[in-house]
Parts: sequence; C-alpha cells; structure tokens
Amino acid sequence: MTAFVRNQWYVAAYAHEVGRDLLGRTILGEPILLYRTEDGRPVALADRCVHRRFPLSEKPSRLDGDRVVCGYHGFTYGTDGVCVSVPAQRRIPRTARLATYPVVEQDSFVWVWIGDREPGDTLPPRAPWLDSSDHTVVCGMEPLDADYGLLVDNLLDLSHETYLHGGYIGTPEVAETPITTEVDDKSGVVYVSRHMDDAECPPFYAKSTGIAGRITRWQDIEYHAPCLYLLHSRIAPVGAPGPNPDGSDPHAFHVEVVYGITPSTEKTTYDFWAVARDFALDDQRVSDFLRENNHTVVMQDVVALNVLQKALDTEKPGYQELSINIDTGGLAARRILARMAAENAAPAEAGVR
Amino acid sequence: MTAFVRNQWYVAAYAHEVGRDLLGRTILGEPILLYRTEDGRPVALADRCVHRRFPLSEKPSRLDGDRVVCGYHGFTYGTDGVCVSVPAQRRIPRTARLATYPVVEQDSFVWVWIGDREPGDTLPPRAPWLDSSDHTVVCGMEPLDADYGLLVDNLLDLSHETYLHGGYIGTPEVAETPITTEVDDKSGVVYVSRHMDDAECPPFYAKSTGIAGRITRWQDIEYHAPCLYLLHSRIAPVGAPGPNPDGSDPHAFHVEVVYGITPSTEKTTYDFWAVARDFALDDQRVSDFLRENNHTVVMQDVVALNVLQKALDTEKPGYQELSINIDTGGLAARRILARMAAENAAPAEAGVR
Amino acid sequence: MTAFVRNQWYVAAYAHEVGRDLLGRTILGEPILLYRTEDGRPVALADRCVHRRFPLSEKPSRLDGDRVVCGYHGFTYGTDGVCVSVPAQRRIPRTARLATYPVVEQDSFVWVWIGDREPGDTLPPRAPWLDSSDHTVVCGMEPLDADYGLLVDNLLDLSHETYLHGGYIGTPEVAETPITTEVDDKSGVVYVSRHMDDAECPPFYAKSTGIAGRITRWQDIEYHAPCLYLLHSRIAPVGAPGPNPDGSDPHAFHVEVVYGITPSTEKTTYDFWAVARDFALDDQRVSDFLRENNHTVVMQDVVALNVLQKALDTEKPGYQELSINIDTGGLAARRILARMAAENAAPAEAGVR
Repeated sequence: MTAFVRNQWYVAAYAHEVGRDLLGRTILGEPILLYRTEDGRPVALADRCVHRRFPLSEKPSRLDGDRVVCGYHGFTYGTDGVCVSVPAQRRIPRTARLATYPVVEQDSFVWVWIGDREPGDTLPPRAPWLDSSDHTVVCGMEPLDADYGLLVDNLLDLSHETYLHGGYIGTPEVAETPITTEVDDKSGVVYVSRHMDDAECPPFYAKSTGIAGRITRWQDIEYHAPCLYLLHSRIAPVGAPGPNPDGSDPHAFHVEVVYGITPSTEKTTYDFWAVARDFALDDQRVSDFLRENNHTVVMQDVVALNVLQKALDTEKPGYQELSINIDTGGLAARRILARMAAENAAPAEAGVR
Repeated sequence: MTAFVRNQWYVAAYAHEVGRDLLGRTILGEPILLYRTEDGRPVALADRCVHRRFPLSEKPSRLDGDRVVCGYHGFTYGTDGVCVSVPAQRRIPRTARLATYPVVEQDSFVWVWIGDREPGDTLPPRAPWLDSSDHTVVCGMEPLDADYGLLVDNLLDLSHETYLHGGYIGTPEVAETPITTEVDDKSGVVYVSRHMDDAECPPFYAKSTGIAGRITRWQDIEYHAPCLYLLHSRIAPVGAPGPNPDGSDPHAFHVEVVYGITPSTEKTTYDFWAVARDFALDDQRVSDFLRENNHTVVMQDVVALNVLQKALDTEKPGYQELSINIDTGGLAARRILARMAAENAAPAEAGVR
Repeated sequence: MTAFVRNQWYVAAYAHEVGRDLLGRTILGEPILLYRTEDGRPVALADRCVHRRFPLSEKPSRLDGDRVVCGYHGFTYGTDGVCVSVPAQRRIPRTARLATYPVVEQDSFVWVWIGDREPGDTLPPRAPWLDSSDHTVVCGMEPLDADYGLLVDNLLDLSHETYLHGGYIGTPEVAETPITTEVDDKSGVVYVSRHMDDAECPPFYAKSTGIAGRITRWQDIEYHAPCLYLLHSRIAPVGAPGPNPDGSDPHAFHVEVVYGITPSTEKTTYDFWAVARDFALDDQRVSDFLRENNHTVVMQDVVALNVLQKALDTEKPGYQELSINIDTGGLAARRILARMAAENAAPAEAGVR
C-alpha cells in the first residue's frame, strides 16, 4: 500500500457539505467530525467521544448551538474540543478534551491538516477556478475502494483515456502522443504535459464547446503531492491562434479539471472531482452535460481501480509491474510520496524504525 | 474483547423457542443444538456431527422421535449424545458421541451450562416475574454484532437513556440524578440505584400506566455477572405513599426489565430482553405498546453498540477511555468479569498461561 | 485446507463457454484468461496485464482479432502472450509477455495445465460420453464456496444421497448397502462400487427411464485425482438380464455422471457437472427433467458444503472427524491428493521446506 503522508492539508469535504448536520470523514485513518458553527465557521474535531469512543458524527449525536452532544451519554464539547458537560456530576475531568484539527476553507473545499506538527504559515495548494466568477464549476465526490496511490497512478498517466474512457474523453491521439515530464522534487510537484496538435475532438469537448472539427488539445498536469491534482486542459480548433504573450488566450476553450485525492483508510480513498470551464458560463445545459459526462468518466475509473485493487489483493508479495515512458510522471509521484511519507511518519511509526 | 466466563449458566433461548424444530445457537463460541423431546424435555447437544462436522441444526438434518438424524450422511444420535446409527454398517464406533450440555428450564428461559466442571447444585439466577401469574410479560431477542461487554456497559449506566432513548424511556432527570453503587464481589452481583423524586414521566410509562403528571421513578439494577441483568423499576405519582414495611407497595407501578446477556462469539451477542409488569395485566393494548416501544429502545441500543463495535475495531491497541461517576457500576462489572473469566478459563487456555 | 496439486490438467470451462468474449477463471489461485481465436482455437493466458496488473478479462478489455487489448492502457498481446503494442512508444520491452497455459479441448471441456513442468504427452483423463453421438448430455457449473476437498469427500461417499438428496436420487438402499473400494495409488485413481440388487427407483431414474417398479442399481465410481470424477450408473428392472460378456448391456439404462472438480482459491471451487444418458436420446422432456433435477441435486450439495465450510472455519485447529467404512474411498482420495500435492509443490513452496 502507498504510505500516508502526514503534516499535510487534505480536502475533507466541499464547503457546501459542511453545515449544521454532523459529518464524519476518516482521513489518513483518523476519524474526523466536521460541522459549521452558527456564525459559519467550519470546525474539525476528533470523531470519538472521550468517554466510551462513540462516534460523534453518528445519530443521535447532535449540535446544541455550537456544541456537540454525544448521542450515547451526552458528553458535550465546545468547538475547541473541551468537554463542558457530563452526566450526573458538576466536575468535568481535565483530560476530557477532543483533539482539534486545523481547518481552512479555500477554493470551495474544506481542508483539514493531518499531522503532529502545526501547519504554521503553510496553506493548502490552490485551485482558484473552483471559486471564481470567471468559471462555472460542476463537481462531486466518489468513494473509492482502493489505495490512493492507484488514483495517483491513474491521473498521472492519461494515456488510459483512450482505452478506459473511449467515447467520453479518450481518442486515439491521447495514447499515441508522447508526454514530457518535469519533477520539482523540492516542492513535491510533478508536471506532465501532452500537446496534441491535430486530434479528434471527444464528445466531452465537442458537445460542451460546440467545436465540430479537429482540435489542438493540450493536457498540462500539475500534481501537488500528496493531495491535489490539476489538469489544465486547452482546446481549440486546429489552426486557431495560440495564446498571447501576456497569457490571454481568447481563441481557445479552457477547462480546469481538479482532483482532491484524500486517503481515507489503507484501501479506501475520497475522490473529489471538479470541472471548471471558462466558456458557456451561464449555460445550464452545458453544466448538466459536463456533470453527467464527467461523473461517468470518474465512475469508469472507480470501477476499474476497485477491480485493480481486488486483483492486487490476491497477488503474492513481490509481484512485478512493467513501466514504460508514459509512467514517468506516476513513478516520480511514487518516489515523492515515499520520501514525504518517510519524512513525516507519525512519532510512533518513526520510533519503530 | 471481554473474556468469556465459563462454568456458568447462560440463556440459550426462550422456552417457547425450543420445540420440535432443530435450533442452533452458538454460546461462548460453542455451537449448540437445542430441541425438545416428545415428552417436552429440552435437550442441548453439540451442534456438529462427529463424522464430518456437519451442523445438526441445519437442514435437512431432522428429528426422528427424540433422535437427531444428520442431514448429510444420516448419523443418528439419542438425547444422551450417543450415536445409535451410521450408514452401511452395524458396528458403531464407541467414540461416536456428541457432547451434551446441562439444561435447565426456568423463568421462561432455557438455560445451558457452559464449562468444564459440572454445575452440581448451582442453578441459574432467578427472574421469577417472567413466569408468574402476577405479571404480564412482553419479550424478544435481538442479535447484537458487538462484544457482550459493550452491552454490560450499556445496561449498567442508564444515564444513556436521556440521550439514546429520549422520547421513549429517557428524560433529563435520568442523566442528572447521581447513582449509588454496591458491589458484592463474592457473589458477583453489582447493584446500581438511581432514585428520582420528581421526574418527568416518559412515554413508556405514561402510556402504559396512565399517569398524567410527574413521577417518582426508582431504578434499581441487579447485575448477576455474567449473564443476567435485572432492572427493578418503580413508578408512582409524585406524592403517592411509598412501599409499606411489609414490602407491599399498592400505590406504585412496578416493571421488571430483564436481560439475558449471552455471548455468542467474540463480537456477537444474544440480547434477550423482557418487560414484566404488575398492572394492566389483561390489557392487550398495553402489552402491544410495551412490546413495540421496548423493541424500539432495544434496537436503539443494538444500532448504537454495533456502531461502537465498528469504531472500536479501528482503534489502535491501548486506546483510552475516560470514566466518571456514572461508570462505577460498569467498571465494577468489568472487574468481576475479568476475575471470573480468569478463574474459569478453559483447560487449554489455562495451560497456555 | 486441501493442498493444490500442480502439474495437472484441470477443467477450466465448457467448450461452449469459451468464445469471442473474454472469460476469466481463477484456477489453483492463478488468474487465467480464456478466449477463442477467430479460427476457433482456445487460448489461455495469464489474466493480468504486465503493466499495472489490470485483469485482461475485465471490461473494457477486449479482443482485436486474435489479440487482447488491456482495457486500462491498451497494452496488446498476441495468443503467444507476447506484447505487440504499448501506448505512446514504438519500443516494446522484451519482458512484456504474459505467461501462457497449455490448453486441450476434449470431451466438451477446455482443459488447462497448471504447473511448472510442461505436460509433454500427458493428456487429461477422459469422459468421452460428453461428446458422443451415442449419448445425450445435460450439464452446468456451480461455483462452490468451499475447499475442493469437501467436494471430493462428498462425491466419493454416495451414502449421503439417502439423506441430502432424498426424494431426488436418494433411497434407503444407498445408505444401507456396503461399498467396495479399490485404490490404484500409482495412477491416482480411486474406485468405489455399490451394487444394489433390489432397490427403490428414485424419481431421477423413474421419470427419465419410465421404469415403474424396483430396480437393480449399480454405482461405479472412478475418481481420477485430482480433477475428474466419473460415476457409471446402471439401472435395470429387477430380474432383467445383466450385461453380456462382450460388454453390451441392452436390458439396462446407463447414465454417466461426470464432475470436473477444479480448485479455484483455497476455499472456492468450480463444480462442473454433467449427466450423459444412453436412452431417450432425442426426448427433450427427459433432457429438461434431468437438467432441472440434477441442478437441484447439485445445489443441495453446494448449500450443504458451503454450510460445512463455514462451520469448519470456526473449528479450532486439530478438530476431530470420525471415519467409518463408507469413508474408505474419500480417505484414499485424501491420501493420494496429499502425496500428489507434495510431489508437485510449486518451486517456491518446495524451497521453503
């Protein structure tokens, strides 16, 4: 399995998922309770009552103002995790306190910091298109019954679009066109680019942009290990002018495909996906089409990766893979994840070494 | 997990469940076959054919008079466990014999003795209200996917009624009122009492007794470790006279809530529950209401404890709980169970130590 | 669990199951891909892409002519297992090659050789009735959630017909009549015979043959360890002449019951069953009746063996069985299987010893 990287921000939920209902998510194996205070601030606490370990996200646990009341025996906690009420006695044990998690709301996500150190000035990586008036966004989240490393592999090698997503986003040119890969080891960012000069336009882009003929199609991936994946997708009719020196690019359509990759347990992952476009901003039919179409594509990945995980579960230790050029980005990502995981191992785990 | 206590009587079934159909129950990990002879005597045998280990409680195994015929190859056993017939030969191996279990039918339950020693004069603890013309009883059994210790914890700390069973049997006063606890270590009995002098009357009692206003409500628990839990519940309108010196108590309503707590496997438990009342004896509507209402309450516990067991299954070894005054009874029960388990470990387990 | 015997032919599928759709079967723990070339030849390859281990039998993997295209990234393989195409590059790594399995199509089955050695001249054992104009066949395959050894036990001791299959193929005489057993250790064949001179005719034979009264019923088993089980069943009215010296037997009805016993994983098995008869060859109603009736019988075994496996899973190590005369054949089979497994252990396993 792919080791967890601690001391990192992870997408815990979409901002719109966190409200006045208690929400439980397990991130890097840690059960976390999410809710929003009456004045709108997101809160993340350990999702286990200190008394008998009942999950605070499970009914009949409930909010009382900004406080969480355990549904089993009524232990009550403030947003700082401190227990403020227990049954049948006034004295509250000093150790009755839930762990709290640093939370940031950014780019339509609620991010939670998992680690032993404090985040300090470190902020989550950015995906500004998801919360920008210049873009229209469709999004969703699919639970994946697979190691998050399988999703990283998947997303860093888009040649699979031709095979797994043929008829949706894949065309022959994706698998045929070589990639270029750059790795920023220090920042933990992997860049994979594939520029197709003259390609078939797949339904995903044909129907949403209205382009009838062949296209130039650029796929520029930025993977910010471990948690955020950005695909800058540029589509233009063949022969249309390229971007201007100032960065403006009026003759092309741009889609920003964003994945929040959040390991839940060793073999389960939250697969947050979003598609932001800079065209047809108010066209609900385009939004509906892209939501439906991309959901189908994501589910094709989910089904395939769940199948793959089950297959790997039956492999003997030391089974072989065979990597080729298209895997350069994915292998770089694995190296970075392994290094980051080792550098940020939990104290207990580190002690074992 | 909570260790099993051997050399004890356990509730295997209600008497009405044991008849001329073969019934299989697993108690303390031992598969047991239950049925009743033609003259009405309950029988408990090992539920595995000596030949190839086929479960005798599974179809097409069947009774032939008082004998059990294995549904696989027809090995046939008497009520003493001795094999009396095998296919295609006259000679029956002398070792062809099922283990038998001591059985007692008492207080509407069929009790089975699990252990290495014989019970001798030891009888199961009593719950006479369940088989008495002075009481009317509703009852049921729910399988629980949790360690039986979680059910013991649950029942010995009724402050959870306020939270988990609010709107049914819980009111604020239950969680607010301190308890008194007594422990009879020698007999293995834990007593927990909570006397509320002026409390809201929850629907469970308001609808069944017809009391409109506030009540005095006494909860007197007797837990006979490991297997029987009694809650003597006394309800009376505030201001009504108390019990007489001779024990009679004509101004109050009495409900005897009985639980047979029978560990099945390490993480499954049979939760036998019964509610006996000394009022409205012939009122079917009250019986129907109490059966329905208490079933709902038991299922609230079952759902919560199943959730709790799943949560505990993901905890790292050495996880912490935090106990307060309300847990005094539960902690005493745990101590008694641990001692009794150690004193009655199976020979093989004892040998390992 | 019963050890796997390597270096053997196993029934992987019926010939009619292997066609132009990709079929995945797991045999002795090895995932195997089956399909038929355009000119009708069956092919068996390792069912895992060398790239990232995606199962080639899972959609959207597909055939392109006689080549298999992985549904994940398009790695493409010939019938010899050699990779002929990978995405985005011309050079194909020399190690990109799937393991191939020797295949034989014989007696309506597709047989696959599992082992480290080559089969050489060794051919699968025969069941010629399944592909003969003198017989009419009904057949099926049921997945079994049990160790294949439990199926071998089951089939070698037909006394269970009286109990598990009463009303279908069992009558009292089966369990009552002693067996004779012969063991050919060298060839790994176990023979078990039971000849009933005057027996009730069970519905299976009464309805299919039209015999109204009592019968002579011969059951002659040949078990070719580990994979093929033949039951030569001879049915004739009591008093009818026996077989002629030249082997012809015009006064009797003959049914050849064939089982392909194919271990899939440690606790799952493919149970291929077929019933070939030499009478009423063109009577569709007899075919329909025998298919339905034998399917019911097989499912009675499947349900019972699944129950038995679950029961055995809860047994402590070293649990006891008790064997009697009827088990002579099954015990001989176990001995032969253990010897064959040891002689053919996988190199890695052998190395451990």
